[in-house]
Amino acid sequence: MDFSFTEEQQLIVDGFADVMNSRSWEKYFHECDETSTYPLEWVKALCDVGFDRILLPEEYDGLGLDWVTLAAVYEVLGRLGGPTYILYQLPGLETVVREGTDEQREKIFSYLGTGEQVLNYAMTEPSAGSSWNDMRTTYTRRDGKVYLNGHKTFQTSGMRVPYLVVMARNADDMDVYTEWLVDMSKPGIAKEPLHKLGLRMDSCAEVYFDDVELEESDLFGSEGNGFMRGVADFDLERFLVALTNYGQAYCAFEDAAKYANQRVQGGQAIARRQLIQLKFADMQVRLTNMRNMLFEIAWKHDVGKLGRGDCSMAKYYCSHAAFEVVDDALQILAGVGITGDHRVQRFFRDLRVDRISGGTDEMMILTAGRAALKNYR
Amino acid sequence: MDFSFTEEQQLIVDGFADVMNSRSWEKYFHECDETSTYPLEWVKALCDVGFDRILLPEEYDGLGLDWVTLAAVYEVLGRLGGPTYILYQLPGLETVVREGTDEQREKIFSYLGTGEQVLNYAMTEPSAGSSWNDMRTTYTRRDGKVYLNGHKTFQTSGMRVPYLVVMARNADDMDVYTEWLVDMSKPGIAKEPLHKLGLRMDSCAEVYFDDVELEESDLFGSEGNGFMRGVADFDLERFLVALTNYGQAYCAFEDAAKYANQRVQGGQAIARRQLIQLKFADMQVRLTNMRNMLFEIAWKHDVGKLGRGDCSMAKYYCSHAAFEVVDDALQILAGVGITGDHRVQRFFRDLRVDRISGGTDEMMILTAGRAALKNYR
Amino acid sequence: MDFSFTEEQQLIVDGFADVMNSRSWEKYFHECDETSTYPLEWVKALCDVGFDRILLPEEYDGLGLDWVTLAAVYEVLGRLGGPTYILYQLPGLETVVREGTDEQREKIFSYLGTGEQVLNYAMTEPSAGSSWNDMRTTYTRRDGKVYLNGHKTFQTSGMRVPYLVVMARNADDMDVYTEWLVDMSKPGIAKEPLHKLGLRMDSCAEVYFDDVELEESDLFGSEGNGFMRGVADFDLERFLVALTNYGQAYCAFEDAAKYANQRVQGGQAIARRQLIQLKFADMQVRLTNMRNMLFEIAWKHDVGKLGRGDCSMAKYYCSHAAFEVVDDALQILAGVGITGDHRVQRFFRDLRVDRISGGTDEMMILTAGRAALKNYR
Amino acid sequence: MDFSFTEEQQLIVDGFADVMNSRSWEKYFHECDETSTYPLEWVKALCDVGFDRILLPEEYDGLGLDWVTLAAVYEVLGRLGGPTYILYQLPGLETVVREGTDEQREKIFSYLGTGEQVLNYAMTEPSAGSSWNDMRTTYTRRDGKVYLNGHKTFQTSGMRVPYLVVMARNADDMDVYTEWLVDMSKPGIAKEPLHKLGLRMDSCAEVYFDDVELEESDLFGSEGNGFMRGVADFDLERFLVALTNYGQAYCAFEDAAKYANQRVQGGQAIARRQLIQLKFADMQVRLTNMRNMLFEIAWKHDVGKLGRGDCSMAKYYCSHAAFEVVDDALQILAGVGITGDHRVQRFFRDLRVDRISGGTDEMMILTAGRAALKNYR
Repeated sequence: MDFSFTEEQQLIVDGFADVMNSRSWEKYFHECDETSTYPLEWVKALCDVGFDRILLPEEYDGLGLDWVTLAAVYEVLGRLGGPTYILYQLPGLETVVREGTDEQREKIFSYLGTGEQVLNYAMTEPSAGSSWNDMRTTYTRRDGKVYLNGHKTFQTSGMRVPYLVVMARNADDMDVYTEWLVDMSKPGIAKEPLHKLGLRMDSCAEVYFDDVELEESDLFGSEGNGFMRGVADFDLERFLVALTNYGQAYCAFEDAAKYANQRVQGGQAIARRQLIQLKFADMQVRLTNMRNMLFEIAWKHDVGKLGRGDCSMAKYYCSHAAFEVVDDALQILAGVGITGDHRVQRFFRDLRVDRISGGTDEMMILTAGRAALKNYR
Repeated sequence: MDFSFTEEQQLIVDGFADVMNSRSWEKYFHECDETSTYPLEWVKALCDVGFDRILLPEEYDGLGLDWVTLAAVYEVLGRLGGPTYILYQLPGLETVVREGTDEQREKIFSYLGTGEQVLNYAMTEPSAGSSWNDMRTTYTRRDGKVYLNGHKTFQTSGMRVPYLVVMARNADDMDVYTEWLVDMSKPGIAKEPLHKLGLRMDSCAEVYFDDVELEESDLFGSEGNGFMRGVADFDLERFLVALTNYGQAYCAFEDAAKYANQRVQGGQAIARRQLIQLKFADMQVRLTNMRNMLFEIAWKHDVGKLGRGDCSMAKYYCSHAAFEVVDDALQILAGVGITGDHRVQRFFRDLRVDRISGGTDEMMILTAGRAALKNYR
Repeated sequence: MDFSFTEEQQLIVDGFADVMNSRSWEKYFHECDETSTYPLEWVKALCDVGFDRILLPEEYDGLGLDWVTLAAVYEVLGRLGGPTYILYQLPGLETVVREGTDEQREKIFSYLGTGEQVLNYAMTEPSAGSSWNDMRTTYTRRDGKVYLNGHKTFQTSGMRVPYLVVMARNADDMDVYTEWLVDMSKPGIAKEPLHKLGLRMDSCAEVYFDDVELEESDLFGSEGNGFMRGVADFDLERFLVALTNYGQAYCAFEDAAKYANQRVQGGQAIARRQLIQLKFADMQVRLTNMRNMLFEIAWKHDVGKLGRGDCSMAKYYCSHAAFEVVDDALQILAGVGITGDHRVQRFFRDLRVDRISGGTDEMMILTAGRAALKNYR
Repeated sequence: MDFSFTEEQQLIVDGFADVMNSRSWEKYFHECDETSTYPLEWVKALCDVGFDRILLPEEYDGLGLDWVTLAAVYEVLGRLGGPTYILYQLPGLETVVREGTDEQREKIFSYLGTGEQVLNYAMTEPSAGSSWNDMRTTYTRRDGKVYLNGHKTFQTSGMRVPYLVVMARNADDMDVYTEWLVDMSKPGIAKEPLHKLGLRMDSCAEVYFDDVELEESDLFGSEGNGFMRGVADFDLERFLVALTNYGQAYCAFEDAAKYANQRVQGGQAIARRQLIQLKFADMQVRLTNMRNMLFEIAWKHDVGKLGRGDCSMAKYYCSHAAFEVVDDALQILAGVGITGDHRVQRFFRDLRVDRISGGTDEMMILTAGRAALKNYR
């Protein structure tokens, strides 16, 4: 067993730490959050040192690195206060590598290094939650074209991405689920922003498709494979959410620890009170558990041993554990945390959203629970 | 034993329910929250049917009712979505009855029925948290006048109240803590608003006193009695916070229950899933417990049996239990709760602040724990 | 609202307190627990002052009192260390009043005042848990007699009761569930004791019926009504389990409070430490909640307002809350609680069993959760 | 990072698995537990394949292996149902290597391979809990001899060990704490067994020393170093308790998983119910966390990076997490787990004791919390 980074991994981590320390980002993050603005400057700075190429294969000019390295980068970004939730799609470009056509890959990869959001996946609909068989969005072939109709909701990044991979059912055979790469500048597309409790630097939207005209070449992956494709890539998404949760908790913990050591009340630092020490023991437990769980899962992925329930378990555990750490941190910071613009307040709102978006707790629980049971049948 | 209201209590409750149902207040509350505005229209409407006279003795034109009735009113207001946290000072006018001079009472009671915030109590200071002996605000007698100097922080309602009862130490004898009724329009007073995670319809401020000139007649209560006065009235404040917590939880629970029965996923209402039923069992338990605890405490107060730790216990339990109910409600409402302007999202932010303001969890725990132990010495 | 006992209720409570204080019962309870012996002396002493007549209608020589009074008696017995779980069937004689024939009532009531266990209800089977449609026990009519065949398991009081009301299906029409009052001294009945983690003063048994010959007059209630009868009486049983849980927690709490005030470590009583005070705050919260919930339910029953999920909720909440109180008490008592023969150790084992027997947590959760949701359909 | 065992480690694990699978040990364990008997046969079998030589340096005929390997062995023993708590002192012989004289080492090491308990450390006293300055046991030098007087309580293994290392204060200078290796067959020693809720295969005793005559050569370590020695070796003890907790949880989890997949109720395996799946998701989380935490700590120890609070954190977390896993397993096994002789019932009792013995939760919390805070001063 070995719980340490390689030298190369440490160098990469240090590089991203340098970006974080190169300026005081917190003011910028706060403003972006207040105004629901995408923090382009920050993402650009990360891409300048290769963030969007970490997992990308070398033949596409990527670094071809592994999940352990990715996790190490997420950890340092989160610890130093970065809103890593807006980065979810960048490591996910391997989906485009695997499923996209040359033409599609070219379109998408032309954004590499820009720091821009490029694409996201559209599944959830108002009548359907995360359930597939209530989906109402369809595509219809007519005169050599394909027409998309429907309504996607809670669409992450929906206001800003130039491309959306839209899951739809064949209107002539509703059992066939297919994905389409939709250029969001096309006619027939309407978007409405949705205000959110947290994760506000990323947009969220209602998206309406009214007879949007597509070409056959816009088909993403293979016809009828939409369902399978979605399931395959859920794991990475859930893993990244869990990494973000952990990073925010780490940052909040350090803010609280520094404060508790300095804040004097009744003649001594509050860090010397048993009720405060209890919180730090609990926070330390949760941070240790999140970190080990995430790096173990990354390692399992990298050596081909990823279990079916692993990433769901990580999202379930980390979204709760991180929330509890941040809740404790807020309690320790007390008035200072609750008022003004303390970042822990922002993490608190962000984390609550994360227990719903990217798959609810309940979905994670059932997936993880069934996977645990399956081994003993 | 009898767990029911009297007919008179029920009539009063119905009267306040009528105010709540007289128009759709939610849009108004949402706007007030977004813009950090005091909901004067709503409080005025409540005062029109006597809210600010519930506890006030009949000789001051009050209704002279008891805590049980007050609790019943808070319950119905909260259940129907009212931001009852902005009402904390109105039932507290009995402090003015008890401690105030005729002149002071006249000033304060002239606001009765207006719905306006009238006064609040200023204790907390930056260096002191809720600890008394680190207090730095002082008063100094000079040439027949009294001069107030100091800095109060996290001052609830601080931006709006015309009067603030300020706790200060005698500069010439720091062991003497005295309260002064300060007219906030006086020269030498500066205020800065503090943004908060929740409870935004009420203001929060830094307040600076720079040689503010007071008269001897502004002394509130008796000289040197500041400490005792504060402790005596903490109980009502804590009780009102707990009532507000409970009311918000009740409202969130009902929103979630209606939604769970209607929301169909995979062909059946989500209310039929075990994981959802578990949440409702837990919510029901917590609502039952909060309600009984609060009404028992109200009854104990009314019959002269209030225990030393009772109100602290209620604030501790209700702020946590209500938070958990609201958290469950958010999880059930999922996307609908997290995005847009659903009121449960607001409750979630409000409740988090309530575990700090009005006395932290930790203070409640120690007060309640010691009171429990004291009976067995 | 009124949270106090009537004078009559207080007198009754005092009477039972006198029985508890009349001798040092703890040594006797400990021996009965160690040897899995029914504490006949104690139950006899309780029946001497009317315990088994509390709910019984006056026409059957009962006291005809209500659930509130019963709850008050359970509270004082539990608080003073009594193993009230062995009393579950005594208040349940109203089932016999309602369902029994004159002859059956006479048989059962002849035990009144003796302190003996008289009867219990046999439903659970090895293949069926608490599920009805997997039940395998049958009755068959042949030559004017009725023959019972089957196997009941986890049968509470099974080794000792002279009568068992056995649920069985009509072998000729398996949809008909009927109960039979079985004299346990009949031929064809075999019993095997089951060792248990807790609740050891009461027996638990496997019971086998091999062509046990019954008369038509042994039919209990009406034919085919077994299912309905069982459901109707579950509420009282669950309520009594919850009362027992609460009583044990109350007793453990007082043992721990006295100890914490006396036990000196590092120069001061451990009661002065924050981590200990936290436990007492939490214990006080839970005791308050259990008590109020139980008396409210009793009151609701007595005024005809008992809700469908109320007793299930009480069993769910109280079995958990009491367990946590007892767990805290054990932690405070530490070495003294874990070693030797401290009664809190016994409560700890008893309470764990109570989350399974009398209906599992899971059944309680689903019943309570569905009842909460039903009001909002 | 690497979360796998080396080939050598896997071979060792397999060797111990072979011992566990060589016969059906459970019946033996159950009898030993029922009769409070030391399971000598089992420990002997483990020592036959080198258990007591794992950590022992090669110069003392040990295997000189590391904590990771030790943890791997504990894991497999616990998973397969072994009562690893009785093994706590065997890996601890390095204390004897470090502190003992040649003569002392010879005495102790002569037991290697026998499977016998050899020694334990005596600190706790009735008036002192785990606090040092209330200790009352003293040693007095007189006529070239040393006389020991005092009373140790809750003495683990106290009835059986041939040697006890006893901490005592110099009667002539109470600030000097020194340890003595006491041959328990000496005159003046009295022992009384203490019954325990769990961990019953190991004894627990009151031990009285009445003018027990020792030689100077019985001094263990260096005079006045008792305090320092004890603290240094607490970490290993806490780590071993945490490993045992984890092993019991793992075993209970697997028992429950197999049962849930087989147990049919209402026509389907209970494993298909959401409330059961929730338990398995939670159990999987806790097992994953315990495992990773323990192996990370072992690795940190082995590479010289063990932190001050690490082992305390592990004992705190694992004793709680394992208890919750076992509690869930019991709930899933329901009647089958609570009655009869199911081993999970035994684990439930064992684990409750482990939150007190070997250092209470509260001591672990404060040590872990302070260590977490110290890094941010």
